[in-house]
Amino acid sequence: MRAVDLIRKKRDSGEHSREEIEFLISGYTRGEIPDYQIAAWLMSAWIRGLSRAETTALTQAMLHSGEVLDLSGLPGKKVDKHSTGGVGDKTSLILAPIVAAGGLIVPMLSGRGLGHTGGTLDKLESIPGFNTNLSLKDFRRVLGECGMALIGQTAEIAPADKKIYALRDATSTVENTGLICASIMSKKLAEGLDALVLDVKTGSGAFMKREKDAVGLAEVMVDAGRSMGKKMVALITDMDQPLGRVAGHANEIIESIDVLNGKGPADVRELSVELSAWMFYLGEKTTSVEEGRKLAERMISSGEAREKFRQCIRLQGGDERVIDKPDLLPKAISKVDVTSNAGGVLVATDCEQFGIALAMLGGGRETKEDRIDHAVGLEFHKRIGERIEVDEPLATIHYNSDAKLEEARDLVAESFVIDQESGEPAPRPLIRRIIGA
Amino acid sequence: MRAVDLIRKKRDSGEHSREEIEFLISGYTRGEIPDYQIAAWLMSAWIRGLSRAETTALTQAMLHSGEVLDLSGLPGKKVDKHSTGGVGDKTSLILAPIVAAGGLIVPMLSGRGLGHTGGTLDKLESIPGFNTNLSLKDFRRVLGECGMALIGQTAEIAPADKKIYALRDATSTVENTGLICASIMSKKLAEGLDALVLDVKTGSGAFMKREKDAVGLAEVMVDAGRSMGKKMVALITDMDQPLGRVAGHANEIIESIDVLNGKGPADVRELSVELSAWMFYLGEKTTSVEEGRKLAERMISSGEAREKFRQCIRLQGGDERVIDKPDLLPKAISKVDVTSNAGGVLVATDCEQFGIALAMLGGGRETKEDRIDHAVGLEFHKRIGERIEVDEPLATIHYNSDAKLEEARDLVAESFVIDQESGEPAPRPLIRRIIGA
Repeated sequence: MRAVDLIRKKRDSGEHSREEIEFLISGYTRGEIPDYQIAAWLMSAWIRGLSRAETTALTQAMLHSGEVLDLSGLPGKKVDKHSTGGVGDKTSLILAPIVAAGGLIVPMLSGRGLGHTGGTLDKLESIPGFNTNLSLKDFRRVLGECGMALIGQTAEIAPADKKIYALRDATSTVENTGLICASIMSKKLAEGLDALVLDVKTGSGAFMKREKDAVGLAEVMVDAGRSMGKKMVALITDMDQPLGRVAGHANEIIESIDVLNGKGPADVRELSVELSAWMFYLGEKTTSVEEGRKLAERMISSGEAREKFRQCIRLQGGDERVIDKPDLLPKAISKVDVTSNAGGVLVATDCEQFGIALAMLGGGRETKEDRIDHAVGLEFHKRIGERIEVDEPLATIHYNSDAKLEEARDLVAESFVIDQESGEPAPRPLIRRIIGA
Repeated sequence: MRAVDLIRKKRDSGEHSREEIEFLISGYTRGEIPDYQIAAWLMSAWIRGLSRAETTALTQAMLHSGEVLDLSGLPGKKVDKHSTGGVGDKTSLILAPIVAAGGLIVPMLSGRGLGHTGGTLDKLESIPGFNTNLSLKDFRRVLGECGMALIGQTAEIAPADKKIYALRDATSTVENTGLICASIMSKKLAEGLDALVLDVKTGSGAFMKREKDAVGLAEVMVDAGRSMGKKMVALITDMDQPLGRVAGHANEIIESIDVLNGKGPADVRELSVELSAWMFYLGEKTTSVEEGRKLAERMISSGEAREKFRQCIRLQGGDERVIDKPDLLPKAISKVDVTSNAGGVLVATDCEQFGIALAMLGGGRETKEDRIDHAVGLEFHKRIGERIEVDEPLATIHYNSDAKLEEARDLVAESFVIDQESGEPAPRPLIRRIIGA
């Protein structure tokens, strides 16, 4: 088998066998196939597409390029959730405690924020002392003690993905369903899961702007997971506006604790409960999703989920007092309101721009090496469908430096789309579709 | 400007500006843009295509990646011919002396054979002592003295093409009209020409099997040359069977001398005269192609073309006595006939296979480092349309080693397509179309 012939095959719209995909991925991981051949292959795959069978084979080849955790020594089903990323999406911080409190194991290998989306690890690191760099041995110990643990990807997990992702980033071959699926699933399936719930975001703040693309990605990911014996479901959820009232790091921790205390914004609570319900159901803790919802609600109302989060923070070296004293979290020095120039109805937001504004303020990173300011954040006062008066505050910016404040403020202001003529728009469901139910 | 954005643009079927193409090519030549980004771009260009304007810009950018000869110190128009390659194609060896004898300058930078096609330089090197590695200074001196000189490409000429060609070869991005045009024309236009005649082969022994593809390539090459102020024409010529009666190296030199002596096969003479006629016309030596034909015929019948070839051989260090004593050329030890199993009419040949059989016998190279046996060759006894009797010789193989003789013999035998039912097929023109007349 020669790489040049496989490139030609994909260039000419051919379909690869499992062996061909394995040849490419293992050859590349071992350094036997050069970057330039994989770059040409990636572009041909981007343009010609990858079939379901090719995507599954690619996912498996990338998964097996590294270590797969064996958590069979821990009693109970292992379940996780993966979100494709958005603005203000803090559900991992809420559902992991809910599901662990309910008796399942949640072994979360999470990512960091890049571009306009936030990362769970970055948010957790706003808690003083919280250590996301546990060894796999410590990860296993924390999981055994409290049923949940959250750490970053390690070098042993799917090394092919690390190499291929860097190449895709440099060759404009990122946004492709098959390649995205293989990248996400090869890392998630390395967690040694029994079941995985996907939250595939769609809308102006998501990578998949169109619902059609989100559904397509969800379908291939569900397929790839099932072909490897995992229970799978995907929720297609709204990202046309931020999730909850805040985006940032410390402020998202506070909002998450609010929800765990039975308070907080309705949308964050609804989505967290729904995702937890599916995790309970797929993890065979309940015999229906409806029962899963009830169990999730009970874990909140009883305080068990909040206490689970407290325990996890302690076991991962963090200051557990933040649960009761949010003042212990970093806080921005200054704040300023963004007010509306016009009256009317908020009909849409350019949600991705909120994420970019947050990054400008220091709350995001352009490259993986950038440091993050955990204190800065955005607070949103209006949701799509609400009436706005002239000069009414749309958002509040919490900031530490005014270096790029004006730019960020303009961006936030421009990202609210207000229609003076519009009546109330039809209410939009937060959960648009369920794939694989 | 960033390479990653330009890759995205071509991936999404965008059209590059001249500046964008120059950025990619000069950045790559200087080593500032890595192989993997150009590999991804080449694949996107292969699949999405390059417009005429992009092809011209690419040709110019590759041309200007290196040195362009300034031959303005030599009196007279500089003209050349380029052939896309075939089996038995020795017209360069005939038309260069004809055109130089007629008073134009023919500065030929030629290539070597690769795969199934022969190379002019390899053929010349079968003449004892002939030096194709002249310095540019000596090249200029020989041109000044006799009006023609034939050397190989030097490192100073179009270095971008050398780098890009190697990458295309490894990434299955060779067969694309725009990329082929830029590769050929960037090297030819570095000769400092006034006019260029293209011989674009089509048929079973050509790179472009379909006439449609040959015409497409011819059109973009004519366009690219004209946009740089060169007089251009392209002849689409038949390569469904070998040109002339022999293919090889020494034996093609002999056949060329035969034509320069007013003898030799009709097809070789016709094509050499026709290409010379266009060179005379575009080089403003005659006011019509018809007058060009007459001048070419006169250069042959007067012996002036033959004497020009003799002079060139001497000036490039070769043994000029070969003109009169072909026995001084290398000669194969053995020969064997390939005979027909069936009677009927020769309706087609799989001409590329003849070239591959010749290479097997030692008369071609698989990699650029392989050495060539100049003595081996194929002699063809039948042309398409002729009747064949059972056991009649179709071809004669001249060989030095029988290592791969049987394999080559079978290949040659199988490449003659004989139809027992067929009547005489319609005569096929050697010159199928003229592009840019």
